[in-house]
Amino acid sequence: MSAPPAFDAGFRDKLGELFAWRRDVRRFRREPVPEGLLTKLLELMQLSPSVGHSQPWRWLRVDNPEQRLAMQASFSHCNANALAEYEGERAALYARLKLEGLREAPIQFAVFCDHATAQGHGLGRRTMPEMLDYSVVAAITQFWLAARAHGLGLGWVSILDPAEIAAILSVPVEWKLIGYLCLGYPEEEHELPELVRAGWENDPRRNGRR
Amino acid sequence: MSAPPAFDAGFRDKLGELFAWRRDVRRFRREPVPEGLLTKLLELMQLSPSVGHSQPWRWLRVDNPEQRLAMQASFSHCNANALAEYEGERAALYARLKLEGLREAPIQFAVFCDHATAQGHGLGRRTMPEMLDYSVVAAITQFWLAARAHGLGLGWVSILDPAEIAAILSVPVEWKLIGYLCLGYPEEEHELPELVRAGWENDPRRNGRR
Repeated sequence: MSAPPAFDAGFRDKLGELFAWRRDVRRFRREPVPEGLLTKLLELMQLSPSVGHSQPWRWLRVDNPEQRLAMQASFSHCNANALAEYEGERAALYARLKLEGLREAPIQFAVFCDHATAQGHGLGRRTMPEMLDYSVVAAITQFWLAARAHGLGLGWVSILDPAEIAAILSVPVEWKLIGYLCLGYPEEEHELPELVRAGWENDPRRNGRR
Repeated sequence: MSAPPAFDAGFRDKLGELFAWRRDVRRFRREPVPEGLLTKLLELMQLSPSVGHSQPWRWLRVDNPEQRLAMQASFSHCNANALAEYEGERAALYARLKLEGLREAPIQFAVFCDHATAQGHGLGRRTMPEMLDYSVVAAITQFWLAARAHGLGLGWVSILDPAEIAAILSVPVEWKLIGYLCLGYPEEEHELPELVRAGWENDPRRNGRR
């Protein structure tokens, strides 16, 4: 057993910068991501918290070009339906937003929660069964931070039909889609979220929300 | 606009140590947590990702002794019901586990998701409305990491009845409980999860799962 690490003020400041500059990335450079780096990021992800130590995350890497085209098609019709629910200036603004990098991102993962897992023996999720899904969200969050620390950008795409994604990837019926992730080196780096820069939502740092 | 930060190998190594030593903590020292540190941690939490920049997290600090006793009562009967579902050696092992620090933790938060928020204008959650809840999970995950970097331990208690917690705290009906958090300085630090050390679940680092 090694000694507990010490985290100093320099590390804590950098961690704050990591949080501040994380971003949801939709604009990727095409250069490949080293396989060794992906392996390392997935190892780090395994250290995420999970209810009852259940580790219910199932990461499927999506490389197949036909499957990727099917993801883009799912996004297209889901996004068209979403656009149809806005009106006037907000609809015009929505139509201008870039909300995903499905065509450009060199690495893509569909991340599922395995509702059939026996690991954890059900501990901690009797009254809050959603804790199993939350464990996968925590793993994605930690993966996201680790990726950013290694110079990568991640975009979480939720404008998709989960049933379609499950069918495209032929996953077991007990697997629930938690997130579809685009990963790659970002074209640009920003401290402000894209939706703030585009005027979709105010910057909470300017309107006193924090 | 400041320049993007650079994250070097030293920072990335420390981030890996932070993930490895995070832990779900149930054994707290009684000493108080500085208010300034709590403020800083909540500011850092605001930098978490959220769908459509909706920031739906609502953090309620639970200081009232009567409310804290009610939380302990909710845990007690939920935990008794959970124990009743195990048999034999596993029941005996479950009964020995310490699963929460509700009596000892100096700081406690009930964290909710505000399903009535207008912020974000619904973006990104038409086909996956659960993204709103997931945004709160991401915020708790980042808060957890930041707390650990500042020497604090956090325990996420899910053996509670969400309807009871909402009633105890008189929150709006649109607020959904995502997590009840215990926070304070930990009695001990460990690299292995408590459930692994107690033999509830195997260590994935020893059985080849990673």
